[in-house]
Amino acid sequence: MEKVNLAEKFGLFSEHWSPRVVGELNGQQVKLAKLLGSFDWHHHEHEDELFLVVRGTLTLRLRDRDVVLSEGEFFIVPRGVEHQPVAEEEVHVVLFEPASTLNTGNLRNERTREELPRV
Amino acid sequence: MEKVNLAEKFGLFSEHWSPRVVGELNGQQVKLAKLLGSFDWHHHEHEDELFLVVRGTLTLRLRDRDVVLSEGEFFIVPRGVEHQPVAEEEVHVVLFEPASTLNTGNLRNERTREELPRV
Repeated sequence: MEKVNLAEKFGLFSEHWSPRVVGELNGQQVKLAKLLGSFDWHHHEHEDELFLVVRGTLTLRLRDRDVVLSEGEFFIVPRGVEHQPVAEEEVHVVLFEPASTLNTGNLRNERTREELPRV
Repeated sequence: MEKVNLAEKFGLFSEHWSPRVVGELNGQQVKLAKLLGSFDWHHHEHEDELFLVVRGTLTLRLRDRDVVLSEGEFFIVPRGVEHQPVAEEEVHVVLFEPASTLNTGNLRNERTREELPRV
């Protein structure tokens, strides 16, 4: 039961595509991630996923369009919807999703993070 | 499935202590609220509640201490924990909580909002 300062937490890690858990409530988690480059196309079968951009510009590619998010904007990717996060420059995002959500969704590869560290 | 710009949404209402719904996922809601003054002491029996401050300074009074949140800081009030939000000047907050969460928790009074508008 301590408050969380987002900027301070983002200062504690530098790895890209490796979410950190900063809060948990009602079976959901609040995660922070730094993104750079293109991630894998994937979907989450049972989980909706919220991306809130706090620094930079994130493109969420969907199969039928691109959603471009600037600072202070969020988008909810509904369950089952394929998406590919793309960050031309480093982006800081807050994720809000069930604790069960795997970062690579339906895929398991070298970018999959099974146990997310807390910061 | 549209993106949400927080500043734009905050520009669409002015009433204090009357949350607006701006997103829904996994049975949870994302709400925006403008706070000014002191709210009622209350608790939520079954729901944890996240307060993320995006403008101003919010004091969350708990029975044993005060938590002071500045911009870019959040706090999760665990279920069952009595709290009183206090804003000496207007504060803009993002709330994450179950769709079932009532703004006044265990109380029903003139500040209770049963049906939250979407913006």
